[in-house]
Amino acid sequence: MKLWDKGFSIDKTIEQFTVGNDREIDLHIAKYDIQASLAHAKMLYKIDILSAEELQQLEKGLSNLQTQIDENSFFIESQFEDVHSKIEYELTKTYGDVGKKIHTARSRNDQVLVALQLFYKDHLQSIKAKSKTLFNTLLELAETHKEKLLPGYTHLQVAMPSSFGLWFSAYAEILIDDMYLLDAALKTVDQNPLGSAAGYGSSFPIDRDFTTKALGFTTLKYNVVAAQMSRGKNERTIAAAFGSLANTLSRFAMDICLYMSQNFNFISFPDELTTGSSIMPHKKNPDVFELIRGKCNKIQALQTEMVLITNNLPSGYHRDFQLLKENMIQAFVDLETILDVFNYAIQQVIVKDVDLNDDKYKYLFTVDNINSLVENGMSFRDAYQQIGSQVQDGSYKPDASKQHTHIGSIHNLCLDEIREKYDK
Amino acid sequence: MKLWDKGFSIDKTIEQFTVGNDREIDLHIAKYDIQASLAHAKMLYKIDILSAEELQQLEKGLSNLQTQIDENSFFIESQFEDVHSKIEYELTKTYGDVGKKIHTARSRNDQVLVALQLFYKDHLQSIKAKSKTLFNTLLELAETHKEKLLPGYTHLQVAMPSSFGLWFSAYAEILIDDMYLLDAALKTVDQNPLGSAAGYGSSFPIDRDFTTKALGFTTLKYNVVAAQMSRGKNERTIAAAFGSLANTLSRFAMDICLYMSQNFNFISFPDELTTGSSIMPHKKNPDVFELIRGKCNKIQALQTEMVLITNNLPSGYHRDFQLLKENMIQAFVDLETILDVFNYAIQQVIVKDVDLNDDKYKYLFTVDNINSLVENGMSFRDAYQQIGSQVQDGSYKPDASKQHTHIGSIHNLCLDEIREKYDK
Amino acid sequence: MKLWDKGFSIDKTIEQFTVGNDREIDLHIAKYDIQASLAHAKMLYKIDILSAEELQQLEKGLSNLQTQIDENSFFIESQFEDVHSKIEYELTKTYGDVGKKIHTARSRNDQVLVALQLFYKDHLQSIKAKSKTLFNTLLELAETHKEKLLPGYTHLQVAMPSSFGLWFSAYAEILIDDMYLLDAALKTVDQNPLGSAAGYGSSFPIDRDFTTKALGFTTLKYNVVAAQMSRGKNERTIAAAFGSLANTLSRFAMDICLYMSQNFNFISFPDELTTGSSIMPHKKNPDVFELIRGKCNKIQALQTEMVLITNNLPSGYHRDFQLLKENMIQAFVDLETILDVFNYAIQQVIVKDVDLNDDKYKYLFTVDNINSLVENGMSFRDAYQQIGSQVQDGSYKPDASKQHTHIGSIHNLCLDEIREKYDK
Amino acid sequence: MKLWDKGFSIDKTIEQFTVGNDREIDLHIAKYDIQASLAHAKMLYKIDILSAEELQQLEKGLSNLQTQIDENSFFIESQFEDVHSKIEYELTKTYGDVGKKIHTARSRNDQVLVALQLFYKDHLQSIKAKSKTLFNTLLELAETHKEKLLPGYTHLQVAMPSSFGLWFSAYAEILIDDMYLLDAALKTVDQNPLGSAAGYGSSFPIDRDFTTKALGFTTLKYNVVAAQMSRGKNERTIAAAFGSLANTLSRFAMDICLYMSQNFNFISFPDELTTGSSIMPHKKNPDVFELIRGKCNKIQALQTEMVLITNNLPSGYHRDFQLLKENMIQAFVDLETILDVFNYAIQQVIVKDVDLNDDKYKYLFTVDNINSLVENGMSFRDAYQQIGSQVQDGSYKPDASKQHTHIGSIHNLCLDEIREKYDK
Repeated sequence: MKLWDKGFSIDKTIEQFTVGNDREIDLHIAKYDIQASLAHAKMLYKIDILSAEELQQLEKGLSNLQTQIDENSFFIESQFEDVHSKIEYELTKTYGDVGKKIHTARSRNDQVLVALQLFYKDHLQSIKAKSKTLFNTLLELAETHKEKLLPGYTHLQVAMPSSFGLWFSAYAEILIDDMYLLDAALKTVDQNPLGSAAGYGSSFPIDRDFTTKALGFTTLKYNVVAAQMSRGKNERTIAAAFGSLANTLSRFAMDICLYMSQNFNFISFPDELTTGSSIMPHKKNPDVFELIRGKCNKIQALQTEMVLITNNLPSGYHRDFQLLKENMIQAFVDLETILDVFNYAIQQVIVKDVDLNDDKYKYLFTVDNINSLVENGMSFRDAYQQIGSQVQDGSYKPDASKQHTHIGSIHNLCLDEIREKYDK
Repeated sequence: MKLWDKGFSIDKTIEQFTVGNDREIDLHIAKYDIQASLAHAKMLYKIDILSAEELQQLEKGLSNLQTQIDENSFFIESQFEDVHSKIEYELTKTYGDVGKKIHTARSRNDQVLVALQLFYKDHLQSIKAKSKTLFNTLLELAETHKEKLLPGYTHLQVAMPSSFGLWFSAYAEILIDDMYLLDAALKTVDQNPLGSAAGYGSSFPIDRDFTTKALGFTTLKYNVVAAQMSRGKNERTIAAAFGSLANTLSRFAMDICLYMSQNFNFISFPDELTTGSSIMPHKKNPDVFELIRGKCNKIQALQTEMVLITNNLPSGYHRDFQLLKENMIQAFVDLETILDVFNYAIQQVIVKDVDLNDDKYKYLFTVDNINSLVENGMSFRDAYQQIGSQVQDGSYKPDASKQHTHIGSIHNLCLDEIREKYDK
Repeated sequence: MKLWDKGFSIDKTIEQFTVGNDREIDLHIAKYDIQASLAHAKMLYKIDILSAEELQQLEKGLSNLQTQIDENSFFIESQFEDVHSKIEYELTKTYGDVGKKIHTARSRNDQVLVALQLFYKDHLQSIKAKSKTLFNTLLELAETHKEKLLPGYTHLQVAMPSSFGLWFSAYAEILIDDMYLLDAALKTVDQNPLGSAAGYGSSFPIDRDFTTKALGFTTLKYNVVAAQMSRGKNERTIAAAFGSLANTLSRFAMDICLYMSQNFNFISFPDELTTGSSIMPHKKNPDVFELIRGKCNKIQALQTEMVLITNNLPSGYHRDFQLLKENMIQAFVDLETILDVFNYAIQQVIVKDVDLNDDKYKYLFTVDNINSLVENGMSFRDAYQQIGSQVQDGSYKPDASKQHTHIGSIHNLCLDEIREKYDK
Repeated sequence: MKLWDKGFSIDKTIEQFTVGNDREIDLHIAKYDIQASLAHAKMLYKIDILSAEELQQLEKGLSNLQTQIDENSFFIESQFEDVHSKIEYELTKTYGDVGKKIHTARSRNDQVLVALQLFYKDHLQSIKAKSKTLFNTLLELAETHKEKLLPGYTHLQVAMPSSFGLWFSAYAEILIDDMYLLDAALKTVDQNPLGSAAGYGSSFPIDRDFTTKALGFTTLKYNVVAAQMSRGKNERTIAAAFGSLANTLSRFAMDICLYMSQNFNFISFPDELTTGSSIMPHKKNPDVFELIRGKCNKIQALQTEMVLITNNLPSGYHRDFQLLKENMIQAFVDLETILDVFNYAIQQVIVKDVDLNDDKYKYLFTVDNINSLVENGMSFRDAYQQIGSQVQDGSYKPDASKQHTHIGSIHNLCLDEIREKYDK
C-alpha cells in the first residue's frame, strides 16, 4: 500500500529496490511520526478542516498505535512501503475517511522530515546527557589519580612528565568542544519544518506557529524551500558533530590500547573486560576499546557519506535523500552504545604505578632542570645548551623535584573550572 | 561459545558490544569458511596431523553443513560468537575431538581472512559479469539509436551536436576503465593468505602451496605479516574499484534524471518503472535512477570508511578490522543489485525525438559552420570571429548538414572497436 | 637557523623535506605570532622573568617587525625554518640575549598553536561578516523579485509553483544554520592554549590568566594536554563549519548553473560576468559559479584531510600536525574570496519572466486544484484521485489563481522573521 | 590574452577568480602541451589543413619553446590565462596566422586533457620506478636482518615471535598490491583523448589513429564523449592508486615511529636524520617519518576531493574540472619526493638487538609450546588449555627453540619468490 497509488502497478523488481529496508529503519521514527501527526491533526481542527469529532477519532487512533509501539507490538508489514503508509492504513481501517483526511495539507516528505527532526532532537539530547556522564567519570578519575605521574610523549618520544590526572581530565575538557558542535546540531534540528509539504508549501491556510508550539520546537524554518533543504543539512550537521565526538573517543581509545601494551604497561582492565585469542592462551586483548576506536572511526566517515549523497543536487526533493536516514539512525544507536560502554569500562581502569626512575624515562626532567637554571638567572637558550651538553656526554642527572603549579598543569588541574566551563 | 574460552566469564555488556552483528553478516561467508576449512583439513592430513579417518569425518561434517547452507537451514544461534565458532561446535558435537583438531595450525584471523578473500574473489567476478551485461546493453542501445541527435552541453550550456549513440556508448566505454580497477582488486584478493595464523605464521610445517592450489588461488601472499596486512588492504582496494564503477553509474543516473525532466524531455520510461507522489497526481518520478545515484554515492563513500578504520594503526592484527566486513559485504550486495536493476531498467528507456530546430538549440552548429569556412581556407581564429559576429548581431543561420566522421564521432561510433577493447 | 640547533648538522635532503613550504604559509600567521609574543613577554615581566627594560626592548623589536609586516617588507628568508625562528633571530640580532629570553616558558608548539588560534578567530569573524553581507543581499533579491513565479521541482520533475522570492530567501535562511557551526568553531578556537609548552605545561609559574586577557580570549583551555590536543581539533571543527557553508554555496551555484541553461532559462548574467569558449563563439559560460561550486566542493573535502592526518594518533604532539595548516589557511583565503565574489556576482543576476503557461509547466497547479476541491468538502485522497484521472485522460485544466498565504510560503515570505532569526 | 576573446571585456574581479593559479600549475604541463601540439600539427598536415611549410614553422616554434622550458626560461606572464594561450601567442607572434591555425580541429579542453594525460602517464611510470627501488631496498634490509627476532603484536599486545626479516619484506610484498592499482591507473591514462574537442568531436576529418601513435598511447578513447569524461575519471583513478601506495607508506612510517619510541626501542636512525626540540635538549625526533606519514595521509584524502568536485555533475565539460589538476599535480610531486626520502632514510635504519628474554616478552612463545604438545599427539584445543593454565598459575616456562619453516615464515622468507611476483 502506497500513499500515491494511481492505478497502474509498479514493477516488482523496481518496488523492492525502491522500498529498500525502510520498514526496519522506520520503526525508529514511528513514535515521532505519531507525535507529528497528532499536532498536524489538531492544527487541521483549528483551521476548520477537521471537525471536533474527527479530531477525537484521530487522537484515539494515534494513541492506540502509540500504545502498540510502547508494547513492542507495532510492526510494518510487507504490504506497506513505510511507516507513514502503515499508519494511514490503520487509521482508515478503523475510522474510515477521516484516516485519509489527516493527509490534507501535508506530503510524505513533510512527514519524514518532521519525524526525523523530532528523532534527531530527542536523541541528540540523549547523547549530550551520556557525554556529560562520561565527562563526570573522567573528572572523578582525574581527581582520584591526580598524584600518579606518567611519562609525557611528543613524537612518541619520552618528553616531559605528565600525570594520570592530566590525561583523564584532558579528555574531559576536550569533550566540551564536542558539545559546541552538538549544540549547533541541536539548534539546526530544533526548527519546525512541518508545512513545507512537497517543498513549496501549501495553498491551505495552515497554522505553522501552532504546530511549532505543539511539537516543542524553539523556532521554525520559515521558508518552505529552506525547510525542504533541511534534508541533508540536518544529517551533514549531525554527522559533523558526531565526527567530532567520535574523534575524541577514538583517540582516547587509541591511548588506552597503547598504554595497555606490555611495552607501556601504564594501565590494565579486569579480565572480564578483555577478550582472548583462539591460539594464544596468554592474551587479554583490549577488544572493547579497539571496537570503540573502530566504530568511532566509522562514524567519522559518515560525514563523507552524507555529503556525497546530497552534493551537487539542484534544489528540490530527490529520492536520494531517503538513503540518508539508514546510516544516520544507526550512528545514533551506535554512538549511544559506545558512550555507555566507554563510561562503564573506563570506570574499571586499573592505573599502574609507573617507575619513572627506569632508564628509558631518564630525560623526562630535562626541561625542569633547564628551568631551574633559568630561575637562577641563565637565559633559556644557554640553559638549554648546558643541559643538552650533559645529555650528550652522559653526565646528565635527572632532578624530579620541581612542581608544576600554573593553571592546568600537573599540580593544579583546575577540575572545578573545567566543570564550570562545561555547564556554561 | 567462543574459540578462546579460558575459564573466566566475560562481561555481558562487553560481550554483546564485541560480537555486534557478526552472526548475520557471517552467513554471507559461511560457505567460504567451509571451503577453506576443507582445504586446511586436507593439508593437515597431507602433513600427517590428521589421519585418513579423521579427514573423512571432517569432510563429511563440512559437507553436511554445506548442504544446510544450500538449503537455507544453516543459522548462527546466539550462543555462538561467529560462524567459525558455530562450525567448530557442530563438528565437535558430531565427531568429538577431531572437530577441535581442525583448528591446528590456524587462527581465527586466518579463517576470517581466507573466507573473506574467497567471498571477495567470487563476487568480484560476479560484478564483472554483470558489468559486462550492462556494457552490452549500452552498446545495443547505441546501435539502435545511433541516428538520433541530441544537443551536447558544456557548462550546462547548449554547445554542439551529440547523439544518443554517442551518449549510450560513452558510458559503455567508460565501464572499461572501471574494469581495470576491478581487475586490480581481483589480483589483490587472488593471493592465498591462509597460513598466516595470528599474523606471524606457525611453527607447524604447513604446506601453503597445497592450500593455494586446493582453493584455486593464483598465487599466495608469501610473507605471513603481509598476508595479515591484507586485512584492510583488500577492502580499501575493492572500495576504490567499487567507487570507480559506482561513479560511472551515478553520473549516468544523473544524466537520466536530468534528461527526464520536462525541461529537457529527451527520454522517458514506462509508467511501471516510475513512482508517484502522495500529493501531486501528475508525477511520474525517476526514483529508481535517483536511488541508483544515491546508493552509488554511498558506495563512493565506502573508501573513506575503510581508510579511516585502518589508518595509522601499527602493524599486527587489531579488532577494528572486524568492522571492515559489514559495510563491505553490504556494498557487494548493493552493487550487484544496482547493476541488475540498471540493466533491467535502461533496456526500457524511451528515446524521444528531440527537435533541434527549437530556438534554444539554434547555436548548436556554430562550430560546424566555422569549420566549413576553415575548409574553404580561412584560419580557424578568423572563422571563429566571423561566426561570432553573426551570433552577436543576430544574422547567424544554422547549417546542420555537416557529417562528423572521425573515429569515435557521431557518425563513426566505433562500437566494434570498443567491444574489442573490453575483451582485451 | 633552528630553535633547537644542538651541534650536529641535519641532513640537507631531510631538512628540505621537513621544512616544506612553511616559510610561505607562515607569512599568514606572522602578525599573530607577534601579538602572542608580546603578551607572553608582558607576562614574563609580570612574573619577574623579564626586567622592565628587557620588556621595553622586546616591545620595540616586535613593534618594528609588525611595521615591516604592515608594509609588506617582512620576509622569511631561506636560512630560517619558520616564522618563529625568524622573529627570534631578529630580536636577538638587535637586542642580544633578551631575544633568546622571550622563549622562556614556552615551546614552539605553543607558539604555533596560539598564533594559529588567533588567526582562526580573526578570520572566522571575517567569514561571518561576509556571510552576513551575502545573507542581506539574498533577502534584498527576494524582496525585489517576490512576485515572480518559478516552477518548483521535485525529482527534477515539474511539481508545484515556487518563486524567485522563495528561492533567494531559502538560501538566506539556510545560511543561518551554517552560522551555528561557525559559532561552534569560534567558541572552540576562542580558548587560550598558551602555556601548554610542549603539551605538558611548564615548571615556571606562568600566569595564563594574564595572557588570556591580554590576547582577548574569552576563556582558556585549562588542561595543558587538552590545549595541545587542540591541534587538529581546531582544524577539524573549522573544516566541519566550512564544509557546511561551502555546501550551501555549492548547491546554490548548482541551481544557478542549471537555471542559466537554455533548457531552463530562468536567469542570466551580464556578459562581463561570463566567459567564452575557444571554439564555440556563441558561448557565455557561467564559469564563475562553476568555480564557486568546484572550490566549495574542494572545501567540503578538507574535513576528510584533517581527520586523516590526525586520526588514530596517540596523544602528544606529532610532526604530522604541521601539515594541517597549509590547506586550512588556504581554505580561509578561498572561502573569503568566494563569499566576496558570490556576493558581487549575485547582485547582477538578471531574473527572467518564466512563462508558466508553457505546456511543460501545465501540471504545476494540480495540488492547488486538489486543495480547492478539499476546501469544498472532498477528502484529500478522493480529490487526489479526481484530478489524477483528469491528468490521465487529458481533461485537466490548470487553475493558477490560488494564493499561498501561510508562514514561509510564496505570498508570505517572512523576510523580517528570517532576518531576526539571523541576529538572535 | 584568452583563446576565446570576443570583444567585451570580462570583469577584473571575475577574471582573477577564474584564472586562479593556473599560471604556476601549468608549468608542469607545458612540456606535454608542446608534445601534443606537435602531434596535432603533424596530423593537420597529413589531412591537408596545414602546408608543409606551415608545419615546419610550427615545429620550429614549438621546438624553441621546448628549449626555453628545458633551460627554465619559460614563464607564463600575467597577461596569459594559461599555458595554452601563452604558447599560441608565442607562435603567432613569430609566425603570424599559422600560430592561430594550429588550433584548428581542437579545443582547449582537448589540449588540457591530452597534456594532463601525458603528464600523468610519464609520472606514473616514475612513481612505479621509485617504488621498485624502495621494494629492492626493503628486500635487501630483510635479507640483512633476517636472523634478528622481534616481538610480534596483535591488539598491540605481545603475541608471537616475528623478525626484522618478516617486517621489512612484508612491506615489500604489500607494495606489489599497490602496483596493481598503479597499473590500472596507467592503463586508464594510456588512451589518447585528443580529438574530442569540446567533448563532442569535430566535423574535420581528423586522424585520431595518427595522433595516438605519434604520442605513444597504447590505444585511444574512441568515443569522444567518453574521452571528455576522462576528466575526473583519470584523477579519481590515480588518486585511488596513490591512496593505496600512500597507505602502505603511512603505516610503515607509523611502525617506524612506534619502534623508535623508548618504550619499544627496536630501531633508531643516525642523528642527522632526526630533529630536535626547542625546549627539550635530549630529543631526537623522527620528524621525517612523521611527515611521510602525514603527507601520505593527506594523499589518502585526495580521492575524496576528486570525487566531491566531479560527483553528480551531468555529462559534458564543466569548469569545475579545472580545479582537479592543482592538488593532483602536487600529489605527484609529493609522492615522488616521499618515495625518494623514504628510500634514502630507511637505508640508514639502525636495527637494535631486542632482548626477547625480557619479562614483558615472556609469553611470545606460548603458541610454539602448544604446537610442540600437539606434535606429540595432543589436540590443539587441549594443548591450548594446558599452556593456558600454566600462564594463569605462573608455572609457564617459555621455550624459544622451535623453527618456523613454512613458506613465508620467519625462517623461510621467500624473498626470491616475492621478487619474482613483483616482476610478473
